[in-house]
Amino acid sequence: MNKAKRVTITDIARLAGVSPGAVSFALNGRPGVSAQTRQRILDIAEESQWLPNSAARALVGSHAGVIGFAVNRSAGTLGAEAFFTDLIAGVQSALAGKRIAMQMVLVSSVEEEVATYRRWHSAKQVDGVIVIDPRDDDPRLPVLRDLALPAVVLGSHASPEGHPATIWLDDSQVAHSLFDYLGALGHRSIAYVAGPAEFQHTRLRTEVLAGLGERGVRGEVIATDFSPAAASTAMRSLLSRLERPTAVVFDNDVMAIAGLRVAQEMGVPVPKDLSVASFDDSVVAGLVHPSITCITRDTFGLGAEAAKFLLEQIDAPEVLADRIGAMPQLTVRESTAVPR
Amino acid sequence: MNKAKRVTITDIARLAGVSPGAVSFALNGRPGVSAQTRQRILDIAEESQWLPNSAARALVGSHAGVIGFAVNRSAGTLGAEAFFTDLIAGVQSALAGKRIAMQMVLVSSVEEEVATYRRWHSAKQVDGVIVIDPRDDDPRLPVLRDLALPAVVLGSHASPEGHPATIWLDDSQVAHSLFDYLGALGHRSIAYVAGPAEFQHTRLRTEVLAGLGERGVRGEVIATDFSPAAASTAMRSLLSRLERPTAVVFDNDVMAIAGLRVAQEMGVPVPKDLSVASFDDSVVAGLVHPSITCITRDTFGLGAEAAKFLLEQIDAPEVLADRIGAMPQLTVRESTAVPR
Repeated sequence: MNKAKRVTITDIARLAGVSPGAVSFALNGRPGVSAQTRQRILDIAEESQWLPNSAARALVGSHAGVIGFAVNRSAGTLGAEAFFTDLIAGVQSALAGKRIAMQMVLVSSVEEEVATYRRWHSAKQVDGVIVIDPRDDDPRLPVLRDLALPAVVLGSHASPEGHPATIWLDDSQVAHSLFDYLGALGHRSIAYVAGPAEFQHTRLRTEVLAGLGERGVRGEVIATDFSPAAASTAMRSLLSRLERPTAVVFDNDVMAIAGLRVAQEMGVPVPKDLSVASFDDSVVAGLVHPSITCITRDTFGLGAEAAKFLLEQIDAPEVLADRIGAMPQLTVRESTAVPR
Repeated sequence: MNKAKRVTITDIARLAGVSPGAVSFALNGRPGVSAQTRQRILDIAEESQWLPNSAARALVGSHAGVIGFAVNRSAGTLGAEAFFTDLIAGVQSALAGKRIAMQMVLVSSVEEEVATYRRWHSAKQVDGVIVIDPRDDDPRLPVLRDLALPAVVLGSHASPEGHPATIWLDDSQVAHSLFDYLGALGHRSIAYVAGPAEFQHTRLRTEVLAGLGERGVRGEVIATDFSPAAASTAMRSLLSRLERPTAVVFDNDVMAIAGLRVAQEMGVPVPKDLSVASFDDSVVAGLVHPSITCITRDTFGLGAEAAKFLLEQIDAPEVLADRIGAMPQLTVRESTAVPR
């Protein structure tokens, strides 16, 4: 089957005595042609060794031109978490102009995610994948290794030997940069309004806060579901006590904005009587009044870096070495101060 | 070429005297095998009529299992606009569990977008596409029609005859619901801090505001680039006048939050001395103090509807009829009131 002889849809149409449109419909499995005509067209396509362009390309060994991202989240969470928007935008920034697309699919379990990788691999639908939320004894990593499907993991630890490469950020250093700062300002009672306790970063931050006991800081953790409603409830409860904390740290910016509103509603001036901070930043966190002290992450940059790393990995014969991502920074704004 | 005889990678490896891994590398165009071995493997693959799974699938006429979304925006804008996050999350919600992925690519011009559709179509990479931002004499729509590539357009008008189907929202009705409300509260001087003048929805909203002249309302439009910095500048200029407007309407929630901050910095109480409103809503717009009166859109629902519509269109022999999307609603909060 050489290039000069390659059979086209027009050739098949002529042989079958139908329009090229009918051939296209039949080969794409779309309705609009009779079962009999469809069969005739398929028989002719098979006899004449017709190949769709993508198949012809795969046969000569080029890439699919697609990287895959299977996300184990509900669609609602995907829309609410700025992390995903920024990450996806960053990935797209690295792919723009390269004619490489990102293929994204939501999965509801790790098993479904693994099945997706197997399907993508066997159908040659993607050239490589970006993997998030690595966990202890992660079942996805050996599968990716065995499939030899190029992958880049975003995590908070280096990759185990022989597993796909990781871009990692040291979460405990991030927690130190915020909690140590509040301790140094003189806060001795700090509440941390966190996400669910099973999240790795919640555990890490809780440990770092507990470690501040050495400085005489009393730390307290309130677990929530990350919702602004839960953050408001936690804040009302903290501010209704006789002994209020002097600083409250939230896991994300939306929760912190909800917390600020409760402080205003209860007449507690921020930062004079209460400092407020967040582990996530956003444009709005810098615009509200008072603006919020945050950990600022370059998630857009992380997405771009992950995509570039993956493109390198796709072209590399070996698993590449892990890389350390850009360290998130503490951005101090109006919502934190020395306690009264 | 019948199923029983289908050649596998293992068969090719045996014939070439190499490992199946080497065959996989050679067929996927990855380094790690010598040029000579690669050529031998490709020759054997060709002689034995080997087909990758995706090609075999395409040959028997099934779908790619992918819908395409080419977005003519910079990566930075994509991350900043809540519209995209919500739309993508909504699309994913409709695809979840169906083993259908969304393939997204950023393009930098309408021409590149059209070229992407042609490439996706000829390579059978997607089964259909979602199209946004339709314009007058849109060059994309006749191309999609001629390719017979299934498509659904999100717009503010019905589709021209013979073009792909549209889900449309009546933007002028949306503008009326906000401006008429402010007029009815008694505002007689309303400023509209808008996006660039060439945007269709900016023009529509400007027309509706001008129409309020009949009620004795003086309307004024300030064009910006949608950035919070431009919104702050516009607000400072408006509030520095001897004759201030009594209501300021922003094109989106981030701009309105930036405007609120300027009012606070300049000691102008909202809503007592100034009403503030936005044409876009967000969780944060309802949490800031005062919370902001907004037009609330179900963009997540729109994305889900568009994806479902597209899946129907992919299976339909004809172009389907246009549909009207769920009408955005005015959500009145603390930032608007009867003027003093």
